[in-house]
Amino acid sequence: MIRIVVTGGTFDKQYDELKGALSFTATHLPEMLRLGRSRVEVTVDPLMMIDSLDMTPADRARIVERCREAAEPRIVITHGTDTMVETASALATTTPALANKTIVLTGAMVPYAFGSSDGLFNLGSALSFVQTLPAGVYIAMNGRHFRWDQVQKNRATGVFEAR
Amino acid sequence: MIRIVVTGGTFDKQYDELKGALSFTATHLPEMLRLGRSRVEVTVDPLMMIDSLDMTPADRARIVERCREAAEPRIVITHGTDTMVETASALATTTPALANKTIVLTGAMVPYAFGSSDGLFNLGSALSFVQTLPAGVYIAMNGRHFRWDQVQKNRATGVFEAR
Amino acid sequence: MIRIVVTGGTFDKQYDELKGALSFTATHLPEMLRLGRSRVEVTVDPLMMIDSLDMTPADRARIVERCREAAEPRIVITHGTDTMVETASALATTTPALANKTIVLTGAMVPYAFGSSDGLFNLGSALSFVQTLPAGVYIAMNGRHFRWDQVQKNRATGVFEAR
Amino acid sequence: MIRIVVTGGTFDKQYDELKGALSFTATHLPEMLRLGRSRVEVTVDPLMMIDSLDMTPADRARIVERCREAAEPRIVITHGTDTMVETASALATTTPALANKTIVLTGAMVPYAFGSSDGLFNLGSALSFVQTLPAGVYIAMNGRHFRWDQVQKNRATGVFEAR
Repeated sequence: MIRIVVTGGTFDKQYDELKGALSFTATHLPEMLRLGRSRVEVTVDPLMMIDSLDMTPADRARIVERCREAAEPRIVITHGTDTMVETASALATTTPALANKTIVLTGAMVPYAFGSSDGLFNLGSALSFVQTLPAGVYIAMNGRHFRWDQVQKNRATGVFEAR
Repeated sequence: MIRIVVTGGTFDKQYDELKGALSFTATHLPEMLRLGRSRVEVTVDPLMMIDSLDMTPADRARIVERCREAAEPRIVITHGTDTMVETASALATTTPALANKTIVLTGAMVPYAFGSSDGLFNLGSALSFVQTLPAGVYIAMNGRHFRWDQVQKNRATGVFEAR
Repeated sequence: MIRIVVTGGTFDKQYDELKGALSFTATHLPEMLRLGRSRVEVTVDPLMMIDSLDMTPADRARIVERCREAAEPRIVITHGTDTMVETASALATTTPALANKTIVLTGAMVPYAFGSSDGLFNLGSALSFVQTLPAGVYIAMNGRHFRWDQVQKNRATGVFEAR
Repeated sequence: MIRIVVTGGTFDKQYDELKGALSFTATHLPEMLRLGRSRVEVTVDPLMMIDSLDMTPADRARIVERCREAAEPRIVITHGTDTMVETASALATTTPALANKTIVLTGAMVPYAFGSSDGLFNLGSALSFVQTLPAGVYIAMNGRHFRWDQVQKNRATGVFEAR
């Protein structure tokens, strides 16, 4: 059993046609899992729906706490890409340690609800890495996985890369 | 470096608007990798473009041979779902053994070119499993992976399951 | 008020993922009208769901009869493209004449349910032509309209053109 | 021959994946006409790419001027929905009058580049109305057409309605 902690991010942004602006309503995770014909046993846990640029230390503390309390040893977190590395770091350096859990953060460069989204690819990737990687905190983007302290987002290209 | 051996299957079917029928032309793999913003180093190898129900023992022998000759230790094969298990078995039981290679077969229930396809999810999943699983032959479908001799396609539901 | 008589055709084909083949189930018209945010007052009338190559004289007689009985003076018919001209001719030459009705036949080259469909464009077009053209039988395809006896489908290009 | 004057609006908004925000780059009109398999003879004229809330009197004067100079007697204008009625009014009340031209303004509630857009439906509709309506200035939205002085956008529902 895998827990999917939803925090918002581009993954779940959609277009508010009355306001003509991007917004959050409900998470698209259940629809995405259905589209992927996923048969992985998961619990979708919509913890918050925010842009990761707006994420506060208190929000990060809630994510860490949720992972600590979770009964599942394997957790995927959907997250905005801008501060994904920061949240990964908060998870990896919390005291006492989040021992024995495999945590994989992922996100999207383009909202799932829009054409040309990488969301479904990234979800398939993160769900697969979380089943096979040893305990630790990772980021899964662009079909690759990185340890939390060996990755950065290249803001010029939008690509996650080793550092 | 990962090799992606393309054999056709539902993954790559498209709609021929002049004939009003399903057909194969070129593979959608490069477009899918672009959509997924994949930065995994891959070689796309379009070996054949056929429905897996039409696959002959000679076709399977070509797939085995291609995997044997490949310099890459990690290989994804896109394949029709109907006889995917049979090809996995051919790969796993060839003599001499395909030692030290991780081979992951995947496919799709709905063509990538159509709405509502599971193809992008499955590609993200297969590319991730192939990077982390030990040497062996596997099938990656529905977000899960199975050893070649522990899986069957349930024809009533379209789901791959343990046997 | 406009009646939309549904007869099937490529418009409404979908992919049966268990059989790996094209099939018909329910019509996509209500979903398409919703997507187009249509506020035209319409009655969707699913008369038959068949490939127009399989349409018999008896099927055509049913379509004519339905148009004759309809209370609405303006009717859109969704229809396979292969024999659309034949059905238009049956409607225009029936005795006694279908007087005082504006009837517009339309269809699609690619199923609505698949990516890259012209269906939504054609529906918007047909619904607009039917509101503004005088009584008569027309075909609306490729953004244009033709009188029933001045049009043919070019089978090499898939385009409807004047004859 | 029909001129399509592009002014931007939701129709042509897209998602800038590096900035995580909506933006304009090139118009999607040629791609949309291709998708609709349109064979209407058109000239696509990208005059400006702006949000209609940012449209100034000078911008409106440019649109009027472009319509006046156009050789084509039939013109479609793609436009943001928020001030579409205002531009229609500017076109209809200019002196000397834009005599003998049929001008149809249309737009979209959701960007064409995103899933669930009404853009293709509206384009098919506007292109059809412009071919059949007498000289005058109209708005085509929601599958319907309105004279410029008999329409308003209902901001609570996003629907254009008679006034």
